[in-house]
Amino acid sequence: MKTYLECLPCFLNQALRAGRIATNDEKKIKRIMDEVGMMLKDIPLESSPPASGKEIYKKVREISGVFDPYKEIKEKSTEKCLALYPSLKNLVEKSHDKLLTAIRIAIAGNIIDFGANMDFDIEEEIDAALTRDFAVCDYTEFRDFSGEADKILYIGDNAGECVFDRILIETMKKPVTYVVRGVPVINDAIYGDAVQAGIHEVAGILSSGTDAPGTILDTCSPEFKKVFEGAGFIISKGQGNYEALFNEKRPIFFLLKIKCPVIAHDMGLTEGDMVLKGTER
Amino acid sequence: MKTYLECLPCFLNQALRAGRIATNDEKKIKRIMDEVGMMLKDIPLESSPPASGKEIYKKVREISGVFDPYKEIKEKSTEKCLALYPSLKNLVEKSHDKLLTAIRIAIAGNIIDFGANMDFDIEEEIDAALTRDFAVCDYTEFRDFSGEADKILYIGDNAGECVFDRILIETMKKPVTYVVRGVPVINDAIYGDAVQAGIHEVAGILSSGTDAPGTILDTCSPEFKKVFEGAGFIISKGQGNYEALFNEKRPIFFLLKIKCPVIAHDMGLTEGDMVLKGTER
Repeated sequence: MKTYLECLPCFLNQALRAGRIATNDEKKIKRIMDEVGMMLKDIPLESSPPASGKEIYKKVREISGVFDPYKEIKEKSTEKCLALYPSLKNLVEKSHDKLLTAIRIAIAGNIIDFGANMDFDIEEEIDAALTRDFAVCDYTEFRDFSGEADKILYIGDNAGECVFDRILIETMKKPVTYVVRGVPVINDAIYGDAVQAGIHEVAGILSSGTDAPGTILDTCSPEFKKVFEGAGFIISKGQGNYEALFNEKRPIFFLLKIKCPVIAHDMGLTEGDMVLKGTER
Repeated sequence: MKTYLECLPCFLNQALRAGRIATNDEKKIKRIMDEVGMMLKDIPLESSPPASGKEIYKKVREISGVFDPYKEIKEKSTEKCLALYPSLKNLVEKSHDKLLTAIRIAIAGNIIDFGANMDFDIEEEIDAALTRDFAVCDYTEFRDFSGEADKILYIGDNAGECVFDRILIETMKKPVTYVVRGVPVINDAIYGDAVQAGIHEVAGILSSGTDAPGTILDTCSPEFKKVFEGAGFIISKGQGNYEALFNEKRPIFFLLKIKCPVIAHDMGLTEGDMVLKGTER
């Protein structure tokens, strides 16, 4: 997805939020914002928003000196989600369509995003996700395609959300490679976050190598790119991955919650919408 | 008032909104935002927000080539407010405390601010302002002081709002000098806007000379500064004038509606609050 003019003030807001989480030093935060302000002129509107996110969160790391500002927040998110795990598993077991319920839960988990939003109630989100209509729902294709697939590449998004992804992975009963970011960026899951969520018990974990808040292939490792190019069935979670991958000619199903007015506009949808969207084949 | 870090993304948002109103040329709007982004590093947090507003809207004028982007919006605001004038006059006439009702109406008019907010319903705002409690209410001092004053300096804020100010001026029955900005900035009233509202029929109109969205004395004309320094009773409307003048040792009464979370925080108040606040004497 391209960058809209509306993304530019949002980038600065993200720099402020991340700066405040990384440090209490107002001077350092001001410096982060000054530098992000100067970066704006170099952002081509043709680039995808996570490409700018990559540079912004790099600045936050550099100036604050904190490598993983959201570490504690991520750990607490995961703890909270793990506490919900037994009841969510129970929900799936009892449901008429286990796969669809697990998908709904995985999308509900996508609300745990400290880049797009700080205010959310995960339990409320789950309740809503279980009954709400999808704005885009390629479920039949997803079910048929995933049934035929011999293995699945599952590109994760946020920490905490991994616990919900685990439930979908367990429900699909296929060999899964779960992809995490290579470097901490916002509250996106890295290796340790996936392990805390227990993903290693149900899937292999692979780093994409990227330090962007979205799987921009040019920023990923050669190893990951090879796996991606060879994958027969790909699940992509969240906005950042959608923004980076929506144009790829691969069999990808995007599972996401629309949390930003610009993406909503770009996709012809509304904030809050639930999306299960397959790429055209 | 000082500039908070939260003001910086807001400045960029204001540049975007004003750019979109001034022109449809996305490249020009991007250039406005690029330049405002680069300006951020030079904004001292000790400066008041309208000092930055001055530079931002100057950039919008320069790059768009449009001297008064909000001209049409201002004219329509004023027309709409003029249509409400007879019923508002009637409300004041019928009320138990005419002065207080006119003050409430003048504060309701302060919602017409395209810098802080684009969404407002003026009729709803008037209904709320007539009954709502003030968060700060130095009404007794205002009434006594204005009763004794032989003339009043009334510093206006937005176009459209002038119509509501006119009602307060008519109710006070004192000689009034009504102050407008020297150069168009956002939808702040300049000379022509005050005349459209009929202010010239009830008061003298004086330009402060400033091109800031607030009466920053250093940016005002020597003529205005002389009048300001000699004034025995001053009414200041709106956030921008409050931000610029709150620290002045003059007998000022600030009439405003709190429309921004940063000012709310700074004043220990809540967004939406109505304020009638006198300077300490």
